[in-house]
Amino acid sequence: MEENSNILKYKHLGIYTQNENVVYMREDCHVCISEGFEALTRIRISNANTSIVASLNVLNSDILLPNEIGLSDAAAKKLNVSPNDTLYVSHLEPIESLSHVRAKIYNKKLDYKAYNNIITDIVEGDYSNIHLSAFITACAGDRMDINEISDLTKAMIASGKQLNWNKEIVVDKHCIGGLPGNRTTPLVVAIVAAYGLTMPKTSSRAITSPAGTADTMEVLTNVTLSSEEIKAVVEKEGGCFVWGGTAQLSPADDVLIKIEKALDIDSEGQLIASVLSKKAAAGSTHVVIDIPVGETAKVRSTEMAEKLKNHMETVGTAVGLNVKVVVTDGTQPVGRGIGPTLEAIDILKVLKNEADAPIDLMERALLLAGELIELSGKVEKGKGTETAKELLTSGQAYEKFLAICKAQGRFSKPVLARYKIEIRAEKSGSLKRIDNRKIAKLAKLSGAPQSKSAGILLNVHLNDKIEKDDLLFTLFAESQGELNYALEYKNSHNDIITIK
Amino acid sequence: MEENSNILKYKHLGIYTQNENVVYMREDCHVCISEGFEALTRIRISNANTSIVASLNVLNSDILLPNEIGLSDAAAKKLNVSPNDTLYVSHLEPIESLSHVRAKIYNKKLDYKAYNNIITDIVEGDYSNIHLSAFITACAGDRMDINEISDLTKAMIASGKQLNWNKEIVVDKHCIGGLPGNRTTPLVVAIVAAYGLTMPKTSSRAITSPAGTADTMEVLTNVTLSSEEIKAVVEKEGGCFVWGGTAQLSPADDVLIKIEKALDIDSEGQLIASVLSKKAAAGSTHVVIDIPVGETAKVRSTEMAEKLKNHMETVGTAVGLNVKVVVTDGTQPVGRGIGPTLEAIDILKVLKNEADAPIDLMERALLLAGELIELSGKVEKGKGTETAKELLTSGQAYEKFLAICKAQGRFSKPVLARYKIEIRAEKSGSLKRIDNRKIAKLAKLSGAPQSKSAGILLNVHLNDKIEKDDLLFTLFAESQGELNYALEYKNSHNDIITIK
Repeated sequence: MEENSNILKYKHLGIYTQNENVVYMREDCHVCISEGFEALTRIRISNANTSIVASLNVLNSDILLPNEIGLSDAAAKKLNVSPNDTLYVSHLEPIESLSHVRAKIYNKKLDYKAYNNIITDIVEGDYSNIHLSAFITACAGDRMDINEISDLTKAMIASGKQLNWNKEIVVDKHCIGGLPGNRTTPLVVAIVAAYGLTMPKTSSRAITSPAGTADTMEVLTNVTLSSEEIKAVVEKEGGCFVWGGTAQLSPADDVLIKIEKALDIDSEGQLIASVLSKKAAAGSTHVVIDIPVGETAKVRSTEMAEKLKNHMETVGTAVGLNVKVVVTDGTQPVGRGIGPTLEAIDILKVLKNEADAPIDLMERALLLAGELIELSGKVEKGKGTETAKELLTSGQAYEKFLAICKAQGRFSKPVLARYKIEIRAEKSGSLKRIDNRKIAKLAKLSGAPQSKSAGILLNVHLNDKIEKDDLLFTLFAESQGELNYALEYKNSHNDIITIK
Repeated sequence: MEENSNILKYKHLGIYTQNENVVYMREDCHVCISEGFEALTRIRISNANTSIVASLNVLNSDILLPNEIGLSDAAAKKLNVSPNDTLYVSHLEPIESLSHVRAKIYNKKLDYKAYNNIITDIVEGDYSNIHLSAFITACAGDRMDINEISDLTKAMIASGKQLNWNKEIVVDKHCIGGLPGNRTTPLVVAIVAAYGLTMPKTSSRAITSPAGTADTMEVLTNVTLSSEEIKAVVEKEGGCFVWGGTAQLSPADDVLIKIEKALDIDSEGQLIASVLSKKAAAGSTHVVIDIPVGETAKVRSTEMAEKLKNHMETVGTAVGLNVKVVVTDGTQPVGRGIGPTLEAIDILKVLKNEADAPIDLMERALLLAGELIELSGKVEKGKGTETAKELLTSGQAYEKFLAICKAQGRFSKPVLARYKIEIRAEKSGSLKRIDNRKIAKLAKLSGAPQSKSAGILLNVHLNDKIEKDDLLFTLFAESQGELNYALEYKNSHNDIITIK
């Protein structure tokens, strides 16, 4: 290589592409010409400290001079460059782990070493979105066996930091989504931490839903904490509710989840690896997993739930976790709110034992908290839910909740969105069906979770007797445009809520 | 929607992303804020005439003003915009065909309607690279049955123009690549056109190889012709050798092939659909397909070749083509040259009956031309090769070749690359093995096919007696950097050519 000739000067273009590393170079720059680079060539960019792989976008305008080079924000951050820094550009050595991805595309089984190579390269940023999408698709639809899922999970655990709490028992819970408003996690953390268990809860943001636990808790407190900050909160209060992304736990998961979101899929193998790698890396020992089953939930049949339960528990054992799966009712949304702020309001009502607190959300939280308390071996079988209920009704759980929020930096009261519209029944009858997917979609179109206070406030449940003009739900949005957009979807879909 | 507020002014940024539609907007622009757009949101961009879907890249620098909007070259071309044109930006209605892609990811069978919806949206440019990669991966590795392959093929035929030659018999041939230097197509066209058959040959550029037929022929003549120009050439000369891309034949194929190239895969279903959709759309009636079999060819076993032959012939019948598959020897490269210019030189030597013309290339071209002549029913079985040979040795094929080149706009003599290095045997022995994949990779690293005259000139064949320091091959490159890069690969892989 003629090293010296492959140097270009960095110019800040400020192009945000999410995780993808993109490099911008003039088509008439000396490096493109001498090296034969063309659009989408994957190339290596280095400075004195580090190097990254990026996809080339070729420029034919003067936003760059021929001796300049631009980077997407993700790439610039990884290289930690400043304007006018010199960067060295070179051909990319073959990424060996892509041969494993190709093997997987052709239905081959991969071993731990192969998954570890893939996950390591993904965390390095060596995969383009095209490669990531192929890896996710090749692993979807029952294409990974149980050993492969265990190996992928182990590789994902090994790819990031691993926390150690120096406690014999560290509990956690997770819900296999698909059920709008089912925001039990903050309640469970408050109850079991009040009980005295250690529950350092890391959550993800929404993948394909209108809110993740991290999105909801961000309404009430800070969720973006460093590992050190999380440690301090948990040592002080026994629990936390933070976003898992910044903690560098299973960092490959954060990359893969964004591609799954773009594809709007969530396959079994990736799902198990995603959930259990986060739990194990967070230092958990005992985990309860909630699988709601319903025609329009993520898991649609008891058979699928039992298979997933079996796989979850098997992979759990393989990676050293004590996993208990609880299959629950997933036929309708839980609580009244759908969207970060609206769900936060439900949570506070339950914690404060308010008269209009959503009972279904409370009961589900008590069930899961009870299962965790039993799994930890601290109370006898059958006494868990009762113990949880005492902690909630006595106000101890609410006190613990506020204490954790304050330890995380703030407790803010939720504020409703400015734009809203009430949706009323067009006829009388019995409420026969709520389509979880469509009502979630409606909440997303109103702006959730990016717009925190957007979403839906449900006023009805399955089997309710409905009179014409009864309030079914209220749509909230932070802009008139989003409200109109959601309304358009609602008006063109008459099967979101079915009354007969 | 508040239509009037969603208007931005186009600024030329000149960012070339291959096929992908990318839109650039300031994060603080009024549209991003009011509509809640964020990075990678898929949005619709419209002007008075048409509209496209694009992925958003959010800008935080002043290469755009807040009221300006930029587009990747692909997107700008589809909208046919000029600087300062106003563009209207809106939320994207759901792309319904992506639900079929998700079904395919989960191993469901798709019908013609589903494939047709997918292919139509791909041609429209509605899929991001993430979606395209998922579709290709979901269809790879035996995941399509024979009916699905037929349906995909039909959908791809319907997605573009379809030529009609007003001839009872229109012949074509195709080689299932993987064999470096196997450039029989231009020879076959010249021979059968000289015989009087109609052979309007459209070829692709290299997918994962150092040269496609279109890359090679571009050394000698123009290959980028409009449908009207192709028609004129074929009417005059009976044959042509053009790139299929601009002819708008099976345009989805051109999009999919670039993603397959980035993934370095070529799956059976996509392969059959790609080949046969191009043939049918080009108006062919009789097609001979060459499948070379060898340990390091694309098809590695006779069993795989027989399966592919069976599928090719079945899908051919389903889409109305008379397909004959010929399984040939794929244990070593064919001819001497690997790379566009070097292969063009081989072709001319065969056509001119030169003393040092590569006999293997000539014999293979005669076999395939002979099969086509027999398939057309114009000579009796067993007489095809003989007929082809007469046309070649008499000079009629060469004359026809030059006539076609001139009809396509030029005949240029091939010129060798400036940088070269001779690779000699390090020991004596018998030449036991040539690794097709590694020698192709070496040719690619030297710059082929982007650098037309880069590549390899082979001096040896399997089973040759080799003395130490005998010339094995010459590496050619258009820059010292590429030559060094290829040499590095050669020096770190001692199993490209095995002498024992």
